[in-house]
Amino acid sequence: MSGQAELSKLSLNQITTENWSLSEAIDGCERNEVPWISIWRHKLAEYGVKETAAHLKQSGIKVSSLCRGGMFPAATQEERDKRIEDNKRAIEEAAEINTDTLVLVCGPSPDKDLVQARKHVQEGIEAIIPYAEQHGVKLGIEPLHPMYAADRSVINTLGQANSLVQYYNSKQVGVVVDVFHVWWDPQLAQEIEAAKGSILGFHVSDWKVPMLDMFKGRAMMGDGVIDLNGMRTQVEAAGYHGPIEVEIINQEIWDRPGDEVLQQMKERYTKHV
Amino acid sequence: MSGQAELSKLSLNQITTENWSLSEAIDGCERNEVPWISIWRHKLAEYGVKETAAHLKQSGIKVSSLCRGGMFPAATQEERDKRIEDNKRAIEEAAEINTDTLVLVCGPSPDKDLVQARKHVQEGIEAIIPYAEQHGVKLGIEPLHPMYAADRSVINTLGQANSLVQYYNSKQVGVVVDVFHVWWDPQLAQEIEAAKGSILGFHVSDWKVPMLDMFKGRAMMGDGVIDLNGMRTQVEAAGYHGPIEVEIINQEIWDRPGDEVLQQMKERYTKHV
Repeated sequence: MSGQAELSKLSLNQITTENWSLSEAIDGCERNEVPWISIWRHKLAEYGVKETAAHLKQSGIKVSSLCRGGMFPAATQEERDKRIEDNKRAIEEAAEINTDTLVLVCGPSPDKDLVQARKHVQEGIEAIIPYAEQHGVKLGIEPLHPMYAADRSVINTLGQANSLVQYYNSKQVGVVVDVFHVWWDPQLAQEIEAAKGSILGFHVSDWKVPMLDMFKGRAMMGDGVIDLNGMRTQVEAAGYHGPIEVEIINQEIWDRPGDEVLQQMKERYTKHV
Repeated sequence: MSGQAELSKLSLNQITTENWSLSEAIDGCERNEVPWISIWRHKLAEYGVKETAAHLKQSGIKVSSLCRGGMFPAATQEERDKRIEDNKRAIEEAAEINTDTLVLVCGPSPDKDLVQARKHVQEGIEAIIPYAEQHGVKLGIEPLHPMYAADRSVINTLGQANSLVQYYNSKQVGVVVDVFHVWWDPQLAQEIEAAKGSILGFHVSDWKVPMLDMFKGRAMMGDGVIDLNGMRTQVEAAGYHGPIEVEIINQEIWDRPGDEVLQQMKERYTKHV
């Protein structure tokens, strides 16, 4: 164990308390002394951007990231252009709620041609970099677990995300490391090191066997097989010292009272991260 | 589309017809003119090695592989030694049923230390190479999808399997390429090329969204997103011209009559592989 993660870095990714509205989640963070929150766009749309910004200011809760831009590949240029426009709206929203990071879930392929879909991702990110720069928002490419390659993202390893970052060579683009997505990777240690200076986020949860639901199967830290403390140590050695988001997509956890989840999350974070 | 796969290469991996005994599966192959079969050890144990060898000889059905050796990592040296002994029994069985390929599913880690578990795999394979050579059996390292890293195998990419093959530098060791496990990999084309001359098997099925069961979620060829024909073309360009196993783990398919499954499998193989 390499020390304890600092509670001052703890962030609630609001999908962990999916049944809470954004207003309830901000209040929950304040009540439970969780200093950061990561906000999802559909929740932000429900509450309103101005209302959210005001509520955040009042509460003192900081925003670690906006979730999510991306979804670049599509069958037609027209549709791809629409996606780029939507990413620009996401960049504006990120700036308005005062976060410097937009998380990119890059999107699945519209057909069996993964090479082409990955090219669409590359072009899509390239198209929004200037807009992100104008708004002071960084773009965090989050590789998703290979089991989501068909339906969520064709960017599936940290190595791929690093290659994109190197390709752009822009301070506006970096990677987001989520333990659930990358823990299995035989190249993980090397790729975290290769990401030095460009890590924009670190997400924790756990991988529990058996996983009964591929989407809603993430576990609370400590309930699974991932060496969370080891990975935090690597990420810190690669220069990341920002907020650490707890992002757990799990129906059982959603069904519990939010305050109880936040308390358990704090305990587990201190013990395992 | 690069031509059609030859029916003379078609092999039934018997887990595709899980409800059949081995004897029924051999008869099913004969009746449906499927020239090859891949046999699982627990089914072989039920039927008996000698009985199986005799039945195969009578039917003329050839054995593409024995499934499976591996499972090398364990918490104690004693347990790891036991696993190696069990792999030697598998090698003997492979020789007795006249197949030249033992498929290795390398096994999960007993704890959170993946680096150590991967070292156990390396040592385990190394320990059985001489025995495999004596029996004229090749060892096919099958990388499993990263979603099985916690419970089935810590060898999760073709790149990893290739590295092991290069490390041993022995004609006795090669890789098995299963489309379900590797289709998502951004390095796939390069790694298939790197495996040139050491591919010992090619397995087909499909990846269908949504996948309702992580273990029993494989789909019939053509029902999913994988470019099967493209991958067969790559594998052939890398020098593999052996049997092509249909390996589908799917409860719905298991619940259908075996002859119906074999007929559909032949049609889909011709159309999509």
